[in-house]
Amino acid sequence: MLKLFYSPNSCALASHIALEEAGASYERVRVNFASNEQRKPEYLKVNPKGRVPALVTDRGILTETPAILAFVAQSFPKADLAPLDDPFAFAQVQAFNSYLCATVHVAHAHRMRGYRWADDPAALEAMKRKVPQSVGECFALIEKEMLAGPYVMGDRYTISDPYLFTLAQWMDGDGVDRKQFPKVQAHFERVGARPAVQRVLAAERG
Amino acid sequence: MLKLFYSPNSCALASHIALEEAGASYERVRVNFASNEQRKPEYLKVNPKGRVPALVTDRGILTETPAILAFVAQSFPKADLAPLDDPFAFAQVQAFNSYLCATVHVAHAHRMRGYRWADDPAALEAMKRKVPQSVGECFALIEKEMLAGPYVMGDRYTISDPYLFTLAQWMDGDGVDRKQFPKVQAHFERVGARPAVQRVLAAERG
Repeated sequence: MLKLFYSPNSCALASHIALEEAGASYERVRVNFASNEQRKPEYLKVNPKGRVPALVTDRGILTETPAILAFVAQSFPKADLAPLDDPFAFAQVQAFNSYLCATVHVAHAHRMRGYRWADDPAALEAMKRKVPQSVGECFALIEKEMLAGPYVMGDRYTISDPYLFTLAQWMDGDGVDRKQFPKVQAHFERVGARPAVQRVLAAERG
Repeated sequence: MLKLFYSPNSCALASHIALEEAGASYERVRVNFASNEQRKPEYLKVNPKGRVPALVTDRGILTETPAILAFVAQSFPKADLAPLDDPFAFAQVQAFNSYLCATVHVAHAHRMRGYRWADDPAALEAMKRKVPQSVGECFALIEKEMLAGPYVMGDRYTISDPYLFTLAQWMDGDGVDRKQFPKVQAHFERVGARPAVQRVLAAERG
């Protein structure tokens, strides 16, 4: 059975929702970031990067949200979570997810994880100050150029949707008013209302 | 015909090599970063993010290296550049590429592109100072945990290989001695010697 290592309110939420939407049989294992469990030897055996998500499968362990999302879509084709038979459309889904992973999530991470890229406390403060701008610019681009609506790819719900929902959850903390981006806000409400998403949010809170 | 927008010595090299390895018919268009062409209106119509690579196809334009690499592999299956019929093995390729995109490339980018994440000149200097350490830690993890050898995924050459080669090219400039990582160094030499890679490097220099 699949086993998802996650931490509440982390980017693992996207994979968590995708598994639930896929109707997968899976177990969830909470990694306690408050006690720094992700850096302890036991968890580093699961994921040497010391991050979540990690998905244990009967073939081995997978990491990285875009890879896990595509894996879930390909492993549960009946759930129709990605255009699997159309390389161009699949690449559009992947390009969106890659932007979230490597640009939006990275901009956000400069608020709390600046120590990854500098040691000077003043530099960490300088990074924090820019987060509202850098994250805001990302969502402005998503609003204007990338989010077709109502779902990311248009009428079809894909693995890009729980991922965008996950990062849009962080906007309040990042000092970016989601309501200035009407399509992002409508998407956030629409995805948040899905039964699978509600179940996962309840499970992560529980 | 496919058209690749690239800049020499950028991460677009990975997609450039993949197209060449696939035997694709494609045109290459150089974007002049020295004159900031990537931020000018004409190029922003191609890629509103103002970055390379961008791949023009007859269906539309694709961006983001991991997405383009998977698209090339899926569009030219005879080139056998990824395990297309095995979702787990494909996810391993994608996880590796996602790590390069969102962690290794991002660590590297703090040397020259720190302005994305802070405005204070002292903060940019603090970021630069940490690059040898942060990039070095990435390659230590690749050496120890991720690079099966001789190719990233073992005996089989995949789209992960030109991508690792591309980022390994930057190590000198980042102040990381590649020779302290024997598997990475051997991979760099092996991939760099491939005829397709030699052709692309010559074209980008030309």
